[in-house]
Amino acid sequence: MIIGNKPALHTVLSPALLYQHELSNTVVVIIDVLRATSTIATALYNGARYIIPVDSVQKCIDTGMQTGAITAGEREGKVAEGLQHGNSPFEYSRDFISGKILVLTTTNGTKLLHAAAENGATTIITGSFPNLSAVCSFVLKQNKNVLLTCAGWKNRINIEDTLFAGAVIDKVKEHFDINCDSSKIAHSLYKEGEADLFGCIKSKNASHYIRLSAYGLEKDIRYCLTPDTANVLPMYMDGKLYADQHY
Amino acid sequence: MIIGNKPALHTVLSPALLYQHELSNTVVVIIDVLRATSTIATALYNGARYIIPVDSVQKCIDTGMQTGAITAGEREGKVAEGLQHGNSPFEYSRDFISGKILVLTTTNGTKLLHAAAENGATTIITGSFPNLSAVCSFVLKQNKNVLLTCAGWKNRINIEDTLFAGAVIDKVKEHFDINCDSSKIAHSLYKEGEADLFGCIKSKNASHYIRLSAYGLEKDIRYCLTPDTANVLPMYMDGKLYADQHY
Repeated sequence: MIIGNKPALHTVLSPALLYQHELSNTVVVIIDVLRATSTIATALYNGARYIIPVDSVQKCIDTGMQTGAITAGEREGKVAEGLQHGNSPFEYSRDFISGKILVLTTTNGTKLLHAAAENGATTIITGSFPNLSAVCSFVLKQNKNVLLTCAGWKNRINIEDTLFAGAVIDKVKEHFDINCDSSKIAHSLYKEGEADLFGCIKSKNASHYIRLSAYGLEKDIRYCLTPDTANVLPMYMDGKLYADQHY
Repeated sequence: MIIGNKPALHTVLSPALLYQHELSNTVVVIIDVLRATSTIATALYNGARYIIPVDSVQKCIDTGMQTGAITAGEREGKVAEGLQHGNSPFEYSRDFISGKILVLTTTNGTKLLHAAAENGATTIITGSFPNLSAVCSFVLKQNKNVLLTCAGWKNRINIEDTLFAGAVIDKVKEHFDINCDSSKIAHSLYKEGEADLFGCIKSKNASHYIRLSAYGLEKDIRYCLTPDTANVLPMYMDGKLYADQHY
């Protein structure tokens, strides 16, 4: 149903579907729940100066050398060769990360972030359960169209990113015109799972749950599905993610 | 969970995601619930000799002239100029269509069907609620990998095609290895809506529900969501859809 003067909200369940949407004058929310955007929120919440997301291990190494930043990234569940740290949010405590710069390489989330920037997005933030309320508060205040974009896995749709899109929709839906079936599907999935998000992705054998739990990372998964433990707003500007205070 | 020797089942929620999948040696199910594949099932169930799906009004006119077939297709809810009939399954009663050839132009479903054929699919069938049981029976007997492909709307994901994928999954899931989040999401949506599919898409204001009901086509929508009223198996071979007897 189209309702008057509300801005529009759409959801993109795979980066391969991003091209369908107008990105300018829109708040683009990058979602990569396990674990890129959860770790980004956590590191910024714990005082990181900023984060430079890069899309390859080599760029991570090079950028680390140029800036003196901490380098981080994993391949197949282990810290990638040549880097110092992994993708787990638990590595980025306040003691460790406060005041520092982090160069982070992730595959799906970073690729989507760069794709959004290259295709005309001017307002790009990252979203995850740890900073769910900050995301909702920001999109409500902006009064602009919103695009919830899920990183998925190599362009495949995944459950956890869809759940997060659904969680945002659940909190802001009265304030947007949502004529978008992907948003309705995401919201339905969230309503089904909201009482126990971990149980939801475990019982469904979500592909990413299988992958990460095989590496013994159930604790990471639980954290990444817990709302508002790192309630900060990561804003992307000039290749860097900063904690924005305006939410 | 990966289980032994079962074939794999995947779901593609938008044609733009088809490229991710191996199509050869796979049963590819084309899903365009409102209304292409529902009308295809109905016309074949009612005795049409075969159906030629084409992707433009002009091709429909040309093919009709060459073959003497009935031409059908709509644009913006009306019979397209130069064609004889529309896309409603109610136009294809046994009295009318038995023994005849139908050339049908639809946008999303036909495009996906051709894309599957051009990308190496050798076993292509069409699925809709009116022929749900025939589809399930066929994929169970084949013992091959299955790809449920949703036509959506201009590459956007839609609720009704996702619901149908979920309905198939609900009936065959024990016999396949389903390590595919899109399939899990489709199945969840179906379980939520199965008791009242029409109520489900109406209450969610599905985009296609809004579009068709604006044309006064609620009766079509109800029919297209009713299982097994035209239980036939449309099989695509050499550019034509036939009713296959082997299911």
